[in-house]
Amino acid sequence: MVRLHLAIDLQYQVGAPGADFIFNLQAAQTRQQFIVWEELLVSQAVPLASHTDPATHTRTLRLTALPGPLTVRYRATLDVTHHVADAASVMEVPVAMLPPEALIYLYPSRYCQSDCLTSQAMELFGGLPMGYGRVKAIQDWVQQQVAFESNTSNSMTSALDTLGSHEGVCRDFAHLMIAMCRALNIPARFTTAIDFGADPALGPTDFHAYVEAYIGHRWYIFDPSGTAIPMGFMRIGTGRDAADASFATIFGTVTSQAPLIDISAQTDLRNGWQYPVHRAEGLSTDAVFSWNLVNAR
Amino acid sequence: MVRLHLAIDLQYQVGAPGADFIFNLQAAQTRQQFIVWEELLVSQAVPLASHTDPATHTRTLRLTALPGPLTVRYRATLDVTHHVADAASVMEVPVAMLPPEALIYLYPSRYCQSDCLTSQAMELFGGLPMGYGRVKAIQDWVQQQVAFESNTSNSMTSALDTLGSHEGVCRDFAHLMIAMCRALNIPARFTTAIDFGADPALGPTDFHAYVEAYIGHRWYIFDPSGTAIPMGFMRIGTGRDAADASFATIFGTVTSQAPLIDISAQTDLRNGWQYPVHRAEGLSTDAVFSWNLVNAR
Amino acid sequence: MVRLHLAIDLQYQVGAPGADFIFNLQAAQTRQQFIVWEELLVSQAVPLASHTDPATHTRTLRLTALPGPLTVRYRATLDVTHHVADAASVMEVPVAMLPPEALIYLYPSRYCQSDCLTSQAMELFGGLPMGYGRVKAIQDWVQQQVAFESNTSNSMTSALDTLGSHEGVCRDFAHLMIAMCRALNIPARFTTAIDFGADPALGPTDFHAYVEAYIGHRWYIFDPSGTAIPMGFMRIGTGRDAADASFATIFGTVTSQAPLIDISAQTDLRNGWQYPVHRAEGLSTDAVFSWNLVNAR
Amino acid sequence: MVRLHLAIDLQYQVGAPGADFIFNLQAAQTRQQFIVWEELLVSQAVPLASHTDPATHTRTLRLTALPGPLTVRYRATLDVTHHVADAASVMEVPVAMLPPEALIYLYPSRYCQSDCLTSQAMELFGGLPMGYGRVKAIQDWVQQQVAFESNTSNSMTSALDTLGSHEGVCRDFAHLMIAMCRALNIPARFTTAIDFGADPALGPTDFHAYVEAYIGHRWYIFDPSGTAIPMGFMRIGTGRDAADASFATIFGTVTSQAPLIDISAQTDLRNGWQYPVHRAEGLSTDAVFSWNLVNAR
Repeated sequence: MVRLHLAIDLQYQVGAPGADFIFNLQAAQTRQQFIVWEELLVSQAVPLASHTDPATHTRTLRLTALPGPLTVRYRATLDVTHHVADAASVMEVPVAMLPPEALIYLYPSRYCQSDCLTSQAMELFGGLPMGYGRVKAIQDWVQQQVAFESNTSNSMTSALDTLGSHEGVCRDFAHLMIAMCRALNIPARFTTAIDFGADPALGPTDFHAYVEAYIGHRWYIFDPSGTAIPMGFMRIGTGRDAADASFATIFGTVTSQAPLIDISAQTDLRNGWQYPVHRAEGLSTDAVFSWNLVNAR
Repeated sequence: MVRLHLAIDLQYQVGAPGADFIFNLQAAQTRQQFIVWEELLVSQAVPLASHTDPATHTRTLRLTALPGPLTVRYRATLDVTHHVADAASVMEVPVAMLPPEALIYLYPSRYCQSDCLTSQAMELFGGLPMGYGRVKAIQDWVQQQVAFESNTSNSMTSALDTLGSHEGVCRDFAHLMIAMCRALNIPARFTTAIDFGADPALGPTDFHAYVEAYIGHRWYIFDPSGTAIPMGFMRIGTGRDAADASFATIFGTVTSQAPLIDISAQTDLRNGWQYPVHRAEGLSTDAVFSWNLVNAR
Repeated sequence: MVRLHLAIDLQYQVGAPGADFIFNLQAAQTRQQFIVWEELLVSQAVPLASHTDPATHTRTLRLTALPGPLTVRYRATLDVTHHVADAASVMEVPVAMLPPEALIYLYPSRYCQSDCLTSQAMELFGGLPMGYGRVKAIQDWVQQQVAFESNTSNSMTSALDTLGSHEGVCRDFAHLMIAMCRALNIPARFTTAIDFGADPALGPTDFHAYVEAYIGHRWYIFDPSGTAIPMGFMRIGTGRDAADASFATIFGTVTSQAPLIDISAQTDLRNGWQYPVHRAEGLSTDAVFSWNLVNAR
Repeated sequence: MVRLHLAIDLQYQVGAPGADFIFNLQAAQTRQQFIVWEELLVSQAVPLASHTDPATHTRTLRLTALPGPLTVRYRATLDVTHHVADAASVMEVPVAMLPPEALIYLYPSRYCQSDCLTSQAMELFGGLPMGYGRVKAIQDWVQQQVAFESNTSNSMTSALDTLGSHEGVCRDFAHLMIAMCRALNIPARFTTAIDFGADPALGPTDFHAYVEAYIGHRWYIFDPSGTAIPMGFMRIGTGRDAADASFATIFGTVTSQAPLIDISAQTDLRNGWQYPVHRAEGLSTDAVFSWNLVNAR
């Protein structure tokens, strides 16, 4: 178990006549991620509407802000329980055995045009043994292909763009890896977290995007940009790609400051709280079950 | 909007070889009840498993405690937004117009044997005009019939028992009112909260049970024991009766101390935070929609 | 796999000013029960509203009938795939490992007052080895205790009543068995089907109630009235007890005729369609998964 | 109400070593689309796994076929109830009032890159009065821009491609219209049906794609290719774009024949069954409700 402390501060200046905000900002409450403590403060006294997606547990917060300054302050303490598996034991799941909830993550999405990458994926990875190792090989290949460069991509940059430009940020690494997985019929999805353990030379602590691949009947975590420590990720938003899990979607004229973010891990072996480290094993914090077992006779 | 601060402290002594606990203890996160801040601390370093029911938003926490002391400490700050309606405008919903989600609350349940009360309900309330006023009349009748007496009922006491004994606690008032509503084809359900504003003479602050009736296409709040101020209720568990919404179900040999509970309201008119008061209007913090509108042509 | 053909004909005479009907009549579409063909005809040209419960797959049909005759004709062909398990290998699931979806089936309900049977259940079955065999022992005990007698019970008869009267119909056998299972912390639920293979001496083919107990991480089928062949059951309604799964709930003045029902199995070994027979193994057509695996580390 | 009869026949030749099929083929069972009668026959005796998405009601059928011929035969009779609204009365829904279930249909998807069309959408339609009329104007514009030409697009063709090529099939018209709607913050989604009433000169009856826009707190139907009669559409699959609602996704080496499809409407005014005609009013067969009402105080 890992105990994480998170602080996010967002600052906006809202222009007339006001603006609508849709945030996917709060930590997800799941069976493997327990929210011990949490606080959300919004500087304007406006109604807050919340919604939790039953399938992904992504929490959406919507508000309509008045003109003027708006700050959103979020604090949380979380206990994350990792499923740890010997990578060699994690098999790919044949399409015939996938749970229905995983099927949508086989299909192409806005930033992960897997349908355009089928031949390339087969050429590069079709000959590898199926399993965790093949997904890891895709991750390594993405890391070799793409250089981490801030401000080289924008909200319209897709996996195909990144494949051409060979540069991007975590979001772009994730999109390319997801597209390659799906092109091989491996369900893959986009998850947001904070970049725990990132090299300070890369800049201040920020929102991070990582990949989950459905193998071994669980969602295993991959960090294709390689900039952070996966054991220190806590789940915020989960979806098909960045279109589903943006931390803030804004409708209106708003100027934003860079988010101020801090994340730390608390160690206490007596309580079972480990410090997040890089691990060679497969890590997972989510599973779905259903179809795969029912036709057994 | 009402801002509430809640503190719950539970203390147990767990016997060998340990015990399983299922709690329905945390405030529900709903579209009208926003959790600003929350903390849950469990004294033993055991895994915590959580589940939120998608239909009722009731949050279940399960843990297996080791022998020895166990304390559970919960703190929360909530903003509750009330739908306030002129009671005269709130109609009953004919069965043909009920949303499917409300149908189960028409049926009898363990402690609300509405099927045995049909004639009595028709005799007492069948002649009244349908609407909020009729449900209010049921509430008033329950209050007249039953005297609030601690320790007169137990976990097996049902609406039929209370109808005979004429005494009980909030749970029993709620069960009898729910059974009467259902006997008249008015969906009714059991909700738990803290008894905000209760007369200190009734004892220390405690878990409270109230009733929600589905009228006017919303769930309207009723407090048949009349001991507290409904505007100060925050939703914890929601279900058919006490069987669904017990704050703690324990499997094993455990001795419990009385819960230590505190609830307060913070007033700040600049922020729109009102002080909870008794109101003549109908109050609701939940709605469901679906069937009722679809056959319109 | 078993292929079943089902025919149900219902006839009503509706009095003025009309009546509302809520039916749970159609076969459930589940991962192990596939509807090959289906037809539902209602004699009156009134709108039909349908709803499928996402948790149980029970299909609800609601309509408002005009005064006069009303007939409902349902035909279906289904392929049911059974999970067959060696009874000795099916363990009980400790409360700490139950999926959240199964928890509500631990709690007492209207007709299954398990909370009143705890001591008796422990006395009778507490000493038996836990597992399929213990649940089978409860089934056998119910069969010994209760004599199948038509018209000895009504819609208000509960497990406690049956325990006293020692007579009842399939519904009553099921309620008593469910209550005993829950009293031992074994989740149990009420399911409706048609009594495939029932002795014609018991009367014409009719709606049947059977029990499902959550053991071995599946819902296993038990037929405590012993009047039919479980392999020939197709799932209609699933719930806590008869309150949830009545085939028709009627609001208004209506006279009913006895349902005309026919069910048959089609055998074709080339297609894998077996004839339903009594089997010594455990049979299951539903499973849920979730909590039970997530805390594994 | 419209009564429709549907027949679909699919024929495949499956190569070694077999193939997995995921079909979204069966009519959706919704509150406004009632399946009176239905039959699905698969020529190979293989297990069929089914899943119904609780949010969209799309029904997924999965099977693993053996090498050799495979035929899938589907027949259904449906009653579709239309919500008919005076177009002038149907307003757009501000983002602040959208139900959470509609939000995902604001975001760009694989074939509907709305994020790339913002300026163009504002330029073309930003000045029009908001409401049904504006969505209709988008539909008319798409119809003017794009020529219906078979075999001019493929499974990788997106809205941006169609905007450039000015030709496509119904799928492409739908994608372009959806992208334009989303670029204006109008939720829009992709729905499949059969092209009822299509000009026989366009070829044999086929699967059709149409658009639903969330306005006036309902999903209103638009047919941007203008080739069919919307009152005669029955819902099959619903999703973000063609990636979600393909009638068949095939994994393996398979040769397909063109689907054989027939659809007809049965008229009987005594039963309330109208013949589908072109209508000037807005038509809708689905609604969602939630957030939009809850903050009323």
